[in-house]
Amino acid sequence: MTGPTEGMDHEPVVPILPRLEGPADLRGLTDPQLAQLAGEIREEIIHTVATTGGHLGSSLGVVELTIALHRLLESPRDRIVWDTGHQAYPHKLLTGRLQDFGTLRQLGGVGGFPRRSESEHDVMDGGHAGTGLSIAEGLAAARDIRHSLERIAVVVGDAALMSGLSLEALNDIGHRQTDMLIVLNDNEMSISPTVGALSRYLSEVKLSNTWRRGRSLWDRSAEMIPIMGGLALELSQRFRKSVVNFAQPGQLFEDLGITYIGVVPGHDIPTLERNFRAAFALGGPVLVHVRTQKGRGYHPAERDQVAFHGAALPPMADTHEARGSGTAKAVPVKAEPAPAPALEPADGVSPTVEKVPNYTHFFATELVAIAAEDRRVVGITAGMPTGTGMNRIQAAFPDRFVDVGIAEQHAVTLATGLAIGGMRPVVAIYSTFLQRAFDQTVHDVCQNDQPVVLAVDRAGLVGEDGTSHQGMFTLPVQLQLPNLVVASPRDEQELRALLRTALAQDHPFALHYPRDAGFGVPVREPELVPIGRGEVIRDGTDVLFVGFGPIVMRAMEAAERLAADGVSVEVIDARFAKPLDRGLILDRARGKRLVVTFEESVVTGGFGAAVLELVEQARLTDPAYRDIPVRIVGLPADRFVDHGSVTDLRRVLRLDVDGLTAQVREALDALEGGPLERRGASTPA
Amino acid sequence: MTGPTEGMDHEPVVPILPRLEGPADLRGLTDPQLAQLAGEIREEIIHTVATTGGHLGSSLGVVELTIALHRLLESPRDRIVWDTGHQAYPHKLLTGRLQDFGTLRQLGGVGGFPRRSESEHDVMDGGHAGTGLSIAEGLAAARDIRHSLERIAVVVGDAALMSGLSLEALNDIGHRQTDMLIVLNDNEMSISPTVGALSRYLSEVKLSNTWRRGRSLWDRSAEMIPIMGGLALELSQRFRKSVVNFAQPGQLFEDLGITYIGVVPGHDIPTLERNFRAAFALGGPVLVHVRTQKGRGYHPAERDQVAFHGAALPPMADTHEARGSGTAKAVPVKAEPAPAPALEPADGVSPTVEKVPNYTHFFATELVAIAAEDRRVVGITAGMPTGTGMNRIQAAFPDRFVDVGIAEQHAVTLATGLAIGGMRPVVAIYSTFLQRAFDQTVHDVCQNDQPVVLAVDRAGLVGEDGTSHQGMFTLPVQLQLPNLVVASPRDEQELRALLRTALAQDHPFALHYPRDAGFGVPVREPELVPIGRGEVIRDGTDVLFVGFGPIVMRAMEAAERLAADGVSVEVIDARFAKPLDRGLILDRARGKRLVVTFEESVVTGGFGAAVLELVEQARLTDPAYRDIPVRIVGLPADRFVDHGSVTDLRRVLRLDVDGLTAQVREALDALEGGPLERRGASTPA
Repeated sequence: MTGPTEGMDHEPVVPILPRLEGPADLRGLTDPQLAQLAGEIREEIIHTVATTGGHLGSSLGVVELTIALHRLLESPRDRIVWDTGHQAYPHKLLTGRLQDFGTLRQLGGVGGFPRRSESEHDVMDGGHAGTGLSIAEGLAAARDIRHSLERIAVVVGDAALMSGLSLEALNDIGHRQTDMLIVLNDNEMSISPTVGALSRYLSEVKLSNTWRRGRSLWDRSAEMIPIMGGLALELSQRFRKSVVNFAQPGQLFEDLGITYIGVVPGHDIPTLERNFRAAFALGGPVLVHVRTQKGRGYHPAERDQVAFHGAALPPMADTHEARGSGTAKAVPVKAEPAPAPALEPADGVSPTVEKVPNYTHFFATELVAIAAEDRRVVGITAGMPTGTGMNRIQAAFPDRFVDVGIAEQHAVTLATGLAIGGMRPVVAIYSTFLQRAFDQTVHDVCQNDQPVVLAVDRAGLVGEDGTSHQGMFTLPVQLQLPNLVVASPRDEQELRALLRTALAQDHPFALHYPRDAGFGVPVREPELVPIGRGEVIRDGTDVLFVGFGPIVMRAMEAAERLAADGVSVEVIDARFAKPLDRGLILDRARGKRLVVTFEESVVTGGFGAAVLELVEQARLTDPAYRDIPVRIVGLPADRFVDHGSVTDLRRVLRLDVDGLTAQVREALDALEGGPLERRGASTPA
Repeated sequence: MTGPTEGMDHEPVVPILPRLEGPADLRGLTDPQLAQLAGEIREEIIHTVATTGGHLGSSLGVVELTIALHRLLESPRDRIVWDTGHQAYPHKLLTGRLQDFGTLRQLGGVGGFPRRSESEHDVMDGGHAGTGLSIAEGLAAARDIRHSLERIAVVVGDAALMSGLSLEALNDIGHRQTDMLIVLNDNEMSISPTVGALSRYLSEVKLSNTWRRGRSLWDRSAEMIPIMGGLALELSQRFRKSVVNFAQPGQLFEDLGITYIGVVPGHDIPTLERNFRAAFALGGPVLVHVRTQKGRGYHPAERDQVAFHGAALPPMADTHEARGSGTAKAVPVKAEPAPAPALEPADGVSPTVEKVPNYTHFFATELVAIAAEDRRVVGITAGMPTGTGMNRIQAAFPDRFVDVGIAEQHAVTLATGLAIGGMRPVVAIYSTFLQRAFDQTVHDVCQNDQPVVLAVDRAGLVGEDGTSHQGMFTLPVQLQLPNLVVASPRDEQELRALLRTALAQDHPFALHYPRDAGFGVPVREPELVPIGRGEVIRDGTDVLFVGFGPIVMRAMEAAERLAADGVSVEVIDARFAKPLDRGLILDRARGKRLVVTFEESVVTGGFGAAVLELVEQARLTDPAYRDIPVRIVGLPADRFVDHGSVTDLRRVLRLDVDGLTAQVREALDALEGGPLERRGASTPA
């Protein structure tokens, strides 16, 4: 880099961040310069997230930690793994993404999580919590097999550390004794206040750490213990260990074979660097327990940590001014915040405040109402009480609410146990995270045919969080499972009815609904829906649309447009993907030119495929169905969907009204156009 | 029960087990009678497993523990949860299943795991390790919500305790402090010698337990520590805690908020009962650490613990005689064992020794050969090194083998890290257990497009282990995943070629193969297969068969039989379910009357559905394909498949040659027969 003192004129402080060419440049900076840089990084993050939305608090908490790691390690030769990935904004700013950072989470822009396609400093694409330890152990094992010497570090949050995957990895790392640095980024708050015994243990460690100063005193005391008989030597060793335990908390990790260093203050770069260096010098797996402050440097985020996880910021005129001024203090923002957005201030909210509450809001409201009537209803979530609205159950019925932390597997099997015990558990988990509880869905819920309601929030496109968060793989996975009912409402009023339906029957029930706002349709008193019953919501003669979930509303609009062109479209809101309303679909398909299915989920093996399988069974015995081909519309097969606003993504993927209309027109044109040689090969969706 | 002293004539000892009417009868027995009963239970288990196969060692280890629990608890009012379930044979014998126990794991007989359909004493259907703690916590939470008072106990093995799901549950149980008894059945050996730091910790606990006698000594010593200044009181408390830690191992559990009692000898009924009673009296969650001996009472099982997990026994003439004599000593078997079966003595082997080695054998042999040539190959498994044949990699290349224990999630993400680090990991896990690593397959392997080979062993029907173990849900789950190649060989020689293919390309690759023996086809030198290339293995003109995996060989036989009836069948071995050989399938389908797909996996959203989706895409533009309906043959949708021999199951499910032939004939008849009103509704498969 060019020296930070170059180019000064009348500005009091020259910005450092724009002049860094790579993390290696960090090693030439003085302590005051590093403090200034930390301030610049915070300012950049706050400014950008105010515009784009994103994960503010976690990234603000790890600024100094990131600088210290990049000063000590030589990335990309050395590898730094960011568990979950939402804490990687400072890392991105230090590794070449400052220029484009304003495009954060926008279509074609910088992603919200590490991405190998963006930088050689990004080790892996991620987004789900708890994978970092396993990845780092794998990198370390590969290094050892190759006999190379690069250093491996992984930064993991306190809540992610309690996921089963992390615990499995800790157990294995302690067993194999591979050289690696584990930085425990402990802000006592991941998505929600961390739950679990291990969390309480960490709190105790932090409290007891104040007793460290008593250590030498007790070393002397130990020497005063009288020696007696043959047990003396080993008792003495055991006693010494007890005293060391006493003086050094974190014995739980030591018991697992992982050297513990802590608690290290998380916003003091020289101290962090010194401890990380010591950790590498020790060899073997070393955990450095760092105490950070989430949202450090942004006052509203410090105060309201739940709301600011991934939230858009309130309007920040003052912040913009602070940025414009070129100041670079460690705490650049002094403005009092505007009120937080009224609706859904949690994870994954788009910057625009919506007029109609989202599906989650209607879900939570209805669930609270049902729970007031039925004492068997228990709400469960896995580290996302605000995002799923389950905090409303918590507030209303604290005895019938469980947040297990980032432990989706446990949430689902625990629900099975509750159901066996006579309860009616409702497990609200985002579609993408429910992937982690697939075996528990099969083996526990479905094999035992228990009335567990899986509330699959964020089904379909979620937008800015990108590839790791789109809710696109859970539907096909569930459609094959015995005993499971799979439903999705077209609008927020049907959501209420389907939730009541789910809790009024006796089998596993998956209820899918999107991150979207509702449509603002008139309030309908919820009525129970017969299981597997679809509804014809538009009559027509040429083409049959069969849709699953809110995409039905857009398909309706497409039907209107096609009607204007003289194509008469009938529309079925299937409501249930499993069991399908076989009779209704086959009845209404009869005599049509084309059946088009709609879902906001991957097209392979999903809702449309189920409709196709149904029609094919009819074709085997009834040739009348053979000239009614089925076109499956949904998310394209064999690719992940990147970040971008849901609106942009729907446009690009042709799942908005324009796109749906165009896809149907093309299908109709192809029907007219006669055979094309293996045309299917180039239109996989 | 009728008294055990009734009905004696010249027999020295009257059997007790047949006279028990339920677990309540246990409370009337004397200590010597209980010891006799334990012997009878062992004898019954050994005798039965010798005939039927099954999980011998675990069940023999928990005989006394089961008796003690059933004496203390009032099942079914109180609930006893058997984690994994393979240790529940004594429980089954004590709860009404003695009469039918000879049908263990046979079609229509007693299942190998707890089943709610068999007994009100069985809390849940299970089979996968690590679910018990969550289920028990759910039962306890439901009890508390209902304000009822039943007691909850769960028995979990040491290896299952280290699964992520169990660790998540422990963390939550310690946090919530619900009253429950956790019995840690520690035999230091679940499927394989347990790995992991926690396992080592438990060993240390057991060693250090001998120091318990020193406790009072140290209590006195503590009093001799001088008191100094203002810190004295709290330091003293802290010191007391250290001394208690010293005297009471298991501090790791205490740190998590779970009271620890241990180590309790596992074959002493009065001691077990006393400790369990004490645990319930304490309140909150209490873990009783019980040391058991796996295979207790059967000498070959004691000696070779890996081979006897779920294995058929060697011929046991002497055992049969011992049974006939009516003796009921605690160790009824004195005979020297015959040699263990030569082939595949591990988990899930059928009692019949097979002539041709199984797919696993060919897989392991080829993998060892490849690993000898390519230093990047690393073998990984999750607690099943013998069953997957990965122990052969372990023996040949110990530095390039990892057994993570029962931690499928970690295995797959660790593999991702190894791949990012330049290795070529091969993760061998049974199909049913790979369900637990679904998110890791999506989010880590596929999102990062890493060359991880998922060796999906036990794909398809597995037989006697029943519902929880059939490999029937993994294929549809994988077919929707971007970047993943999904392949399966028709015979053991193609397996070799596909394994070499998998390791010669750069993307995620899932290789499915069954538990079956190979076909004994002639050795072919393995040649790399172009990705996505199928093979026509029989020419024909009327009907096209497209098959995936070894079912292709049975489909070939069906084709021969149909040829004898004048139906000319062409057969494609697809080899790849993803990507499909689109060109080949569409070319060969053209002009046929019917396409039939074959897979030994659930029909919903699987291989056949993918072929159907392909043909449907062609139909949208080419009417020539509309009169070629597709019939999907596989495992029926919307039901689990119970236990029974694979041969029996294939017969019942019509997937043997007879069944396949009949299914095709029916499809052809239906084509001729014209339309039936919604006939599809009654033939979902």
